[in-house]
Amino acid sequence: MAFTDTAPTGPIDDSDAMGGVARDHLKSFVARIERLEEDKANVMADIKEVYAEVKSMGFDPKVMRKVISLRKIDRNERQEMEALLELYLGAVES
Amino acid sequence: MAFTDTAPTGPIDDSDAMGGVARDHLKSFVARIERLEEDKANVMADIKEVYAEVKSMGFDPKVMRKVISLRKIDRNERQEMEALLELYLGAVES
Amino acid sequence: MAFTDTAPTGPIDDSDAMGGVARDHLKSFVARIERLEEDKANVMADIKEVYAEVKSMGFDPKVMRKVISLRKIDRNERQEMEALLELYLGAVES
Amino acid sequence: MAFTDTAPTGPIDDSDAMGGVARDHLKSFVARIERLEEDKANVMADIKEVYAEVKSMGFDPKVMRKVISLRKIDRNERQEMEALLELYLGAVES
Repeated sequence: MAFTDTAPTGPIDDSDAMGGVARDHLKSFVARIERLEEDKANVMADIKEVYAEVKSMGFDPKVMRKVISLRKIDRNERQEMEALLELYLGAVES
Repeated sequence: MAFTDTAPTGPIDDSDAMGGVARDHLKSFVARIERLEEDKANVMADIKEVYAEVKSMGFDPKVMRKVISLRKIDRNERQEMEALLELYLGAVES
Repeated sequence: MAFTDTAPTGPIDDSDAMGGVARDHLKSFVARIERLEEDKANVMADIKEVYAEVKSMGFDPKVMRKVISLRKIDRNERQEMEALLELYLGAVES
Repeated sequence: MAFTDTAPTGPIDDSDAMGGVARDHLKSFVARIERLEEDKANVMADIKEVYAEVKSMGFDPKVMRKVISLRKIDRNERQEMEALLELYLGAVES
């Protein structure tokens, strides 16, 4: 088994089982990951809730998502992309 | 524009621009979403870090992800799925 | 097992195994799905190749992806979204 | 604009527009990509249909997806992962 050489496995009572120390490590890792995944789920629920508010205030949530995503891009690059986009679209639909 | 009828738009100084109250709402929504997206990015970085620790301790991170994902499923259902999986695989590879 | 009641299972030689007819169905389903997944992988490789050509001709592949995605949206709706986007961005960055 | 130096732009009638040759290239790229994306959508619809048949024959589509995904992995590696998975799960739930 992959981890027996490298992990501190502690006393092994059963040839097929994992040592006590390794087991404790594993349990602790699982607990930490599950707690973090819960945090992530909560944050994602909060984000969803804000978008619901956005909508209930009469704003367009889809456009709002675009605003958020565009703001991650540098303003100059954004304007250049916008110009190219119009040029391409104009050419394709001509 | 979609929101002008439903949102409290406040005094409008420019026919094409958004009213001051609507603008404040929008800014506040954007700030809240960007803060939450930062939280989400941080949590995801933490999760990634735990998996790096998992690996550095000699455990298999891929198997660990499976453990986390299987633990979300009820144990009975899990065992039933596992039995079906073996049956199908056995049949397909016979 | 879930399917034994509903699937034509044919003669069963082993109490734990799947009947011959069910096994043949399963094998045929697996073969069809694997063939289709291969087709899908080929199409995706072709798309990737076109974007590589797009780039080699001096066009911006990222903007090209946007063109493709925007063309799926009705032109009027697209222009309305574009107008809202500018309005929101303008308000947020004022 | 990014492509004007590298793409064969042909005669330009308007300083802001794209040259005729570049425009033709762009149109041809868009046509090819849109055709390929249609192919991809068709293949994906076919896959979905097979899974619907799988279900209608009394097999479990979720388990079927697992079978397909596991068959991509080498049999030895698969068995090793399975053994590790049981070991980890056993340790975590002890």
